[in-house]
Amino acid sequence: MARQSLLQQYRQQYQPALPPILNDLHAIQPVAEKGQYVANSQAAIQELFPLTGQQPVLMFEQGPPYSVKPLKVGVILSGGQAPGGHNVIAGLLDALQKLHPDSQLIGFLDGPSGLIKNKSVVLTNRKVAPYRNQGGFDLIGSSRTKIETDEQFAAVEHTLKEHALDGLVIVGGDDSNTNAAFLAEFCQQRNLPTRIVGVPKTIDADLRNAYIDMSFGFDTASKIYSEIIGNLLKDALSAKKYYFFVKMMGRSSSHLTLECALQTQVNLALIGEEVAARQQSLADITQHIADLICERAAQDKHYGVILIPEGLLEFIPQCQKMIEELNHLLVADPHLSRLLEQETNHAMRLQAIRQRASAEIFACFSNLPEEIQKQLLLDRDPHGNIQLSKIETERLLISLVEQELLHRKQQGSYHGKFNPQPLFCGYEGRAGLPSNFDCQYCYTLGHAAALLIQHEASGYICCVKHLDQPIENWQILGVPIVDMLHFETRHAKKKAVIQKTLVDLEGPVFQAFNQRRKGWRLDDVYCCPGPIQFIGPVDLTDSRPLTLLYEKQTTVCSR
Amino acid sequence: MARQSLLQQYRQQYQPALPPILNDLHAIQPVAEKGQYVANSQAAIQELFPLTGQQPVLMFEQGPPYSVKPLKVGVILSGGQAPGGHNVIAGLLDALQKLHPDSQLIGFLDGPSGLIKNKSVVLTNRKVAPYRNQGGFDLIGSSRTKIETDEQFAAVEHTLKEHALDGLVIVGGDDSNTNAAFLAEFCQQRNLPTRIVGVPKTIDADLRNAYIDMSFGFDTASKIYSEIIGNLLKDALSAKKYYFFVKMMGRSSSHLTLECALQTQVNLALIGEEVAARQQSLADITQHIADLICERAAQDKHYGVILIPEGLLEFIPQCQKMIEELNHLLVADPHLSRLLEQETNHAMRLQAIRQRASAEIFACFSNLPEEIQKQLLLDRDPHGNIQLSKIETERLLISLVEQELLHRKQQGSYHGKFNPQPLFCGYEGRAGLPSNFDCQYCYTLGHAAALLIQHEASGYICCVKHLDQPIENWQILGVPIVDMLHFETRHAKKKAVIQKTLVDLEGPVFQAFNQRRKGWRLDDVYCCPGPIQFIGPVDLTDSRPLTLLYEKQTTVCSR
Repeated sequence: MARQSLLQQYRQQYQPALPPILNDLHAIQPVAEKGQYVANSQAAIQELFPLTGQQPVLMFEQGPPYSVKPLKVGVILSGGQAPGGHNVIAGLLDALQKLHPDSQLIGFLDGPSGLIKNKSVVLTNRKVAPYRNQGGFDLIGSSRTKIETDEQFAAVEHTLKEHALDGLVIVGGDDSNTNAAFLAEFCQQRNLPTRIVGVPKTIDADLRNAYIDMSFGFDTASKIYSEIIGNLLKDALSAKKYYFFVKMMGRSSSHLTLECALQTQVNLALIGEEVAARQQSLADITQHIADLICERAAQDKHYGVILIPEGLLEFIPQCQKMIEELNHLLVADPHLSRLLEQETNHAMRLQAIRQRASAEIFACFSNLPEEIQKQLLLDRDPHGNIQLSKIETERLLISLVEQELLHRKQQGSYHGKFNPQPLFCGYEGRAGLPSNFDCQYCYTLGHAAALLIQHEASGYICCVKHLDQPIENWQILGVPIVDMLHFETRHAKKKAVIQKTLVDLEGPVFQAFNQRRKGWRLDDVYCCPGPIQFIGPVDLTDSRPLTLLYEKQTTVCSR
Repeated sequence: MARQSLLQQYRQQYQPALPPILNDLHAIQPVAEKGQYVANSQAAIQELFPLTGQQPVLMFEQGPPYSVKPLKVGVILSGGQAPGGHNVIAGLLDALQKLHPDSQLIGFLDGPSGLIKNKSVVLTNRKVAPYRNQGGFDLIGSSRTKIETDEQFAAVEHTLKEHALDGLVIVGGDDSNTNAAFLAEFCQQRNLPTRIVGVPKTIDADLRNAYIDMSFGFDTASKIYSEIIGNLLKDALSAKKYYFFVKMMGRSSSHLTLECALQTQVNLALIGEEVAARQQSLADITQHIADLICERAAQDKHYGVILIPEGLLEFIPQCQKMIEELNHLLVADPHLSRLLEQETNHAMRLQAIRQRASAEIFACFSNLPEEIQKQLLLDRDPHGNIQLSKIETERLLISLVEQELLHRKQQGSYHGKFNPQPLFCGYEGRAGLPSNFDCQYCYTLGHAAALLIQHEASGYICCVKHLDQPIENWQILGVPIVDMLHFETRHAKKKAVIQKTLVDLEGPVFQAFNQRRKGWRLDDVYCCPGPIQFIGPVDLTDSRPLTLLYEKQTTVCSR
C-alpha cells in the first residue's frame, strides 16, 4: 500500500462544500427546462437514437419530499487522468447513501474494459476514504478502451444484468460520453433498467459548450503547469541566459496553453487554432520565434519563455499535407518502405523521397532536421502510418530556430547567445492533488450523477452551471448527450461524436490574450502563481481558471 | 515590471520567525568557541592565509548592551539560484537597520562581475519589499564569474574603496565561499576595512559539514521536485503504462536524488556516489534497470518511476576513462578531429575511432546509441573537449534499456510493453517560492551576516546550527572559511577549495534509503508530497528535509 504524505492525510479530511440545493437530496426534483437550450435538431442524429433522442434538459429544483429505494450503481473512469476523478466517486457514493443507506456502488476496474470483462470491486466508505480529494485514478484504474463492437455491447449487457445495476456512471471525455449516449440507447432497446449517466472529464477543457461551463481537472492541471512556468520565468529573469521552450499537454486544443499564458504572462505562447486559421507554416513559426529572440537580443535580453501546444504540428496545414502525401507514398509503394528501412545512408533516403514526392512537400520535408526526418520515415505505427504526434515539437522548434539564428548571425542581423532548454508540462499535471475548486466541482458532479439515476434519467451528462460564481449559485443540470452530438468523418467513416470545443479566436478568452500579449514580448511582466494552496484566504485557495472567468465575463482577479 | 500573483502578494507579507537570540541585536556578543571544532590544521593551507588563517569559531550569545555606528555593507548573489536568496538580503537589510537606522545596504549587480565592474544599486526597504519571501535572484541578479586574476582583485579593491564598505556579504556555493576567504585575506593585506562574510547557498546540499547543517534552497527545491515526482507516481499507478526516467538536478552530488527518493519512494533511484564506489559500468546500470523492469513485468506491472542524478555519467569510472582517452585522441591528432567533422557517414567515423582507441574504450563507445556517439564526437567545447555534461543521461539510459529489453524479448525472458518517458527535474526547482523553512533560515542567515560584520569578523561563513530542531533552539555561529578548505587538483593545478560533501554511503541518510529501497522496487509504496503549503498546521508548512532529519537522527515524520 502506498504511504500517504502528511498533505495527503490532511486532504483526506477536507470536506468539499456543496451547493445549497444539495442540502436535502430527498427534497429535490428534476424539472424539464423550457426552451432555454435548443435540442439537437439534426434529424440524422436523432435517427440513431430512436428511444433516447428526444429528451428534455433537466434542471434540479427544490421539491416535495419523497422516499426512495436502495440503488445499485456502477462507475467507470475512462481515458487519461484528470484531478478530481476520485471526488466524483466520493460524491456519488455519499449521495447514494444519503438517498438510501443500503445503496451500493460498484467500481469497474481499468475503465470500459472492466465493464466488458466484468471486473469490479464494491466501493465501500472504507475503501473510498483514502482517495477523497486525492489525485490520480488509481482507486479503480482507467483505460482508453471503447465499447464499439456487437460483442462488446453483449459483454456489457451481461455485466449490467449480472450486477442488476440501476445505473452506470461513465466519467470521461468527449469520446467516452458519446459512448455513454449509445450505451443508454442500447440499454433502452434491450429493456435493461440501467440508466447511463456521463460526467465531463478532461484537463484539455475541450469538452465544453452552452451546457458545460468547464470540464473537471483543467483547473488543477493548469495551476500545476502555471507553477512550473512561473518558476521558469523567475529562473529566466534571474540567470538571464536561457530560453525555455515549454511544450504544453493538449493535443486537440490549446486551452491549457492559453490559460497558462494568461496566468504567467510568458513572452510568447503559440495557439494551435490561430496557427491553423492563419495557415502558418513551420517556416512562418520559426521566423516568428526568431524575430522575438532578435528583438529581445537588441534589448540585451537573451532569455525568455515560449509555450508550445503539444498538438502544434497537427494545426499546421502544410504539415498535415506533408504527412498525408508521405503516408500515401509509403502505403502505395512497399518497395519504398523497405528501401528506407534498409538504407543506412540518410542522404540516399532523402533522394528516394525527392524522386517520388511533390516539390512543395519535399521542400517542407527536407527543411526538417535530419533526426526528425528519420523519426518520420522509420518510427511508424503498426499500420505503417507516420506518427506526427511522436515528434517532440519543442525540440523541433529549437532546432529550426537555431538554424535561423545562425543564418541571421551570418547576415549580421542577430548578435546574441541562444541557450535553449526544452521542457514538457505533461504527465505531472494529470494526477496532482485536485484544487479546492476541482474537489468541490467533482463532489457536486458525483451528487448530480446520483440524482439523475435516482430520477431514472438515461443518456444524460451531469452539468453544473455558474461555476464562475460562488458555490451558492451553482445550478445542477442533466443534459441529453444526444444534444451535443454532430457528425464527423473519422478514418473515412461518418461518425456521431461530441464536437470538441477549440479555442475561439473571436471569443473573450483569446481576445483578452490577444490584447495583452504584445506587452509581454519585450517587457518581462512575468507572473509566478506558485504552488496550489489548500488552506488560507478563500480568494487564494478557491480561485477559478481565468478561461472560465473571461468566458463568463466575471471580474478577473489574479490568483 | 512583473505582475505579482495573489500568492506572491500574500508571501510578501509573511514575517519569517527568528531564533530568540536575535530579539535584541544590541545585546548579543560573539564568543570564541572552545575546542568544539578542530580548525584546519593543514599547514599548507594556513600558509596561504598568513593574516586570516588562524581565527576562532565564533558563537553568538546574549551579552551586555552596546551602541553601534551606521554600517555600509555590500551584497552579491553568486552562481545558480537557490530559493531564499532574497530573504538573505531582507534579513541583512533589517538587521543592519535594527543595528543602526542609518546603515546602508548596496547590492552589486549580476554577481561578482558587478563587484568587478562596480555596478550597484542601493537596497532600500522600498526596493526590497516586493522581493521578500520570493523566489529567484532577480532583485540584483547573479553570475558565475570568479574573482581570480590580479586585475580582478584590483578592480574589486577599487569598488570596495569607492563605496567605503564596512562589509561585503557573498551569497554562494563552495567556490564563491572559497573566493570569499581569499578576498578576506586580500582585504586584510591591503588594509581595507571591508569584512568579507559568506553565506552557504546551493540547492545541491553539497556545501555541508560539521558547521553547516544544510545549505539554503535545498529544502524548497527538493519539495518542488518531490511534488512533480509524486504526481508522476500517481500517474504511473493510474495509467499503468509509463516508465518515467527522471533526471534530477545536481551534477557533483546526488543529495537531491536521495532526498526526493526518500520523500516519494520511487521504484529505483540511482545514487552517483554508490555507482562510483561499486565501480559500475553503463552496462551494469542498464542491466540493473532492465532487471527491475523484468521483475515488475512478471507481476504484470509495466510502469514505474526511476530517478537518475544529472551527474551520473561523471560518476561512472568507465565513462570518465572513455572521455579522457577520446579527449586525448582528439587533441593529439587534429587530423582526426577534422575527419570526424567532415565525414557524413557515421560508420566511417566509428571506424576512425576503432583504429585509434584501445579495445576497452572502443567497446564502451560503440555500445552507445549513434546519436550519443555523434554528440560526443561533434558537439565539443571551445577547447575541443568532449562535453559529458551535455549528454541527456535519462535519454541515453532509455535507449540502452530499450536495446536490452529487445534482446531479452528475443531470448524469451521478458514479455511486456515498455513505454518510457524522459523528464528533467531542473530549472523549475531553483527559482520557486521558498518554503517557510528556507524563508526563516535565510532571514536568520542575513541577520548572522550583519552581526559578523558588526563585530568585525572577516573570512567567516554564517552558520545556523540545530536546523532540525524548532527555531527556538537555532544557534548562530561564524566559522572561518579557511577551516573548511583542502587541496584539490583542478585542471592540473593544486587549488585550495572547500570540499564538496558527497553522499556518504555509510551515513544515516543513505542507510535509511538502503534499508527501505528493496521494498520500493516491486510493491508500489508511492508517496505524493504534493505542492508546498505556506499556511496551515505547522507540521505541514514548516517541515524540514528528510536529509537533515536523518543526518541529525531526529524523529522523522513524513510531510
